[in-house]
Amino acid sequence: MSSANHAGAPLTPAVIFEMLQAHQRTSALKAAIDLDIFRAVGEGPGDVASIARQCKASERGIRILCDFLVVCGVLSKEDGLYKHTPTSAAFLDPRSPACMASIAQFLGNPAMHEPFKNLAEIVRTGRTSMPGDGTVEPENPVWVQFAETMGPMMGPMAGPLGAVVLEGSTDPMHVLDIAAGHGLFGIEIAKQNPQARVTGLDWAPVLRVALENARKAGVHDRYNMLPGSAFEVDYGGPYDAVLLTNFLHHFDKPTNVSLLKKVRSALKPGGRAATLEFVPNEDRVSPPMPAAFSLTMLTSTAAGDAYTLSELTAMYNEAGYSGITAHPIPMSPHTVVMGLA
Amino acid sequence: MSSANHAGAPLTPAVIFEMLQAHQRTSALKAAIDLDIFRAVGEGPGDVASIARQCKASERGIRILCDFLVVCGVLSKEDGLYKHTPTSAAFLDPRSPACMASIAQFLGNPAMHEPFKNLAEIVRTGRTSMPGDGTVEPENPVWVQFAETMGPMMGPMAGPLGAVVLEGSTDPMHVLDIAAGHGLFGIEIAKQNPQARVTGLDWAPVLRVALENARKAGVHDRYNMLPGSAFEVDYGGPYDAVLLTNFLHHFDKPTNVSLLKKVRSALKPGGRAATLEFVPNEDRVSPPMPAAFSLTMLTSTAAGDAYTLSELTAMYNEAGYSGITAHPIPMSPHTVVMGLA
Repeated sequence: MSSANHAGAPLTPAVIFEMLQAHQRTSALKAAIDLDIFRAVGEGPGDVASIARQCKASERGIRILCDFLVVCGVLSKEDGLYKHTPTSAAFLDPRSPACMASIAQFLGNPAMHEPFKNLAEIVRTGRTSMPGDGTVEPENPVWVQFAETMGPMMGPMAGPLGAVVLEGSTDPMHVLDIAAGHGLFGIEIAKQNPQARVTGLDWAPVLRVALENARKAGVHDRYNMLPGSAFEVDYGGPYDAVLLTNFLHHFDKPTNVSLLKKVRSALKPGGRAATLEFVPNEDRVSPPMPAAFSLTMLTSTAAGDAYTLSELTAMYNEAGYSGITAHPIPMSPHTVVMGLA
Repeated sequence: MSSANHAGAPLTPAVIFEMLQAHQRTSALKAAIDLDIFRAVGEGPGDVASIARQCKASERGIRILCDFLVVCGVLSKEDGLYKHTPTSAAFLDPRSPACMASIAQFLGNPAMHEPFKNLAEIVRTGRTSMPGDGTVEPENPVWVQFAETMGPMMGPMAGPLGAVVLEGSTDPMHVLDIAAGHGLFGIEIAKQNPQARVTGLDWAPVLRVALENARKAGVHDRYNMLPGSAFEVDYGGPYDAVLLTNFLHHFDKPTNVSLLKKVRSALKPGGRAATLEFVPNEDRVSPPMPAAFSLTMLTSTAAGDAYTLSELTAMYNEAGYSGITAHPIPMSPHTVVMGLA
């Protein structure tokens, strides 16, 4: 992420210019996805005129945008023809099963970008400029979009999360998936364990997305829905495991401790509470992606954060859990942190 | 600029996530400058509470923003205290003579960012979404801001440009500085050659900035102003040299050829026309900064571009120049291209 000056090399202000222009990278990728450029490049032949025709766009615009994407490393250019890089072929060509172009809809949502225009003011006040509690206001429609579009990014975390939670168990069990969203984490539990029953908890419009995904995965007969707020609904149970994915970072520590206590009271003795989180190192400035995530919590919530492992462990302990373990997911910025009731 | 996957390493979508979040880097640096964080860090002691107090901001906001700046490489963090990096000390601390924090005002101007929200539509139509000819519309106030704030970025180019144009000459001469802006290029000629007289051409409100800079440099008695449009005013002359800095990239090739012809007719035989430009390699995708600059021209002009050396040479030739030479400025993304009348 950084292109800082290195010791010994002459100082240049390149990183400053680069940061001030970095917003262009976001707009360029979003525009390329909206124009379906990655499909056109995949179909070939890759010359400017052909891509412009396929995307119903001007040649000047296509040539300049595609060159910019090459500079960014998400296309290549050989003898004047644009080609996929391995990355763009895998993750941006809509014909690829791993395509995650849809995440640009959530991450590029103007509602998520808006607070960044007021960032100095947000830093002054210390909380989101969105109304109320920001993205965690009840029934915020952004979470339907999250559920509908972020699956391709979160899906690859589901397998490793399921493996940590299940440890190979195929015993009958009941699992609660709090803030289920797209539902992929609970669905993965049901896929890995044919005797697992899963209850997805989220706001009702979001759960419709989870149920549709459960149907696609063929596990909907073992998938139940519990619509409402995680802070208000009766969880039922007792459960063998509770998933708390991408959730704690939205709230302050006391709120999380209360929530973890409520979760513990819905778990069988020895049951597992598993969070999936961006967990920066204790220095809070590494690794880049988890550390940088705090800024999204500053701009979109009243008091959320990317918590360090010691902070998460303290919250688990205060809520009465034991045996707290951390499981970084390889090749990803995410970590599973699990405690036992 | 690129964090693309490398051959042999497992593929990850990190670059895609990074691009979609890159806009945060722009907002973070702009907010830090607006909050005067780099001054507070320079003054020390660098703990969150002190910086928050110095910047009249919340501790949560300051801690999260400063951590983000560390991730970006424009601050460091040691034992919980924020310190300058060599880069931020030199170029972002307002106490440094090389501070260029002011460029965030021009590069972060909402009028320059606005078109990026419509980038897909701009690529479809092939031209800026701004009214008329975009930033080169007559009297566009953005150029007053450019003149007032971009000096610290452009100033370091002035010495090398002056050396190329003068080649050590201290003979009496008359130099026309077209699109003078902050005036620093022409002023540098007057500084390097005490017998040079300089005429700055730009819109009148912009020339006021140039004249003030000439006064600060002590060369205002040899600095004349020619207010108006480079396409419309009579240049006078004949001149020994004409500077065309950061100008040709706003226009299409035929417009530039006409302009270069008009310049040639105002030059003495053998006189020099020197452009300062972002000049990408012929592949148009390297080096990163000059190549990426085309996108700014797509979004802000009707037909501008970052021209390659072969394109600039062709324009010079068509306008009747000879002896065309290119002089890349070390440690910068800029190149001086010069032709003889």
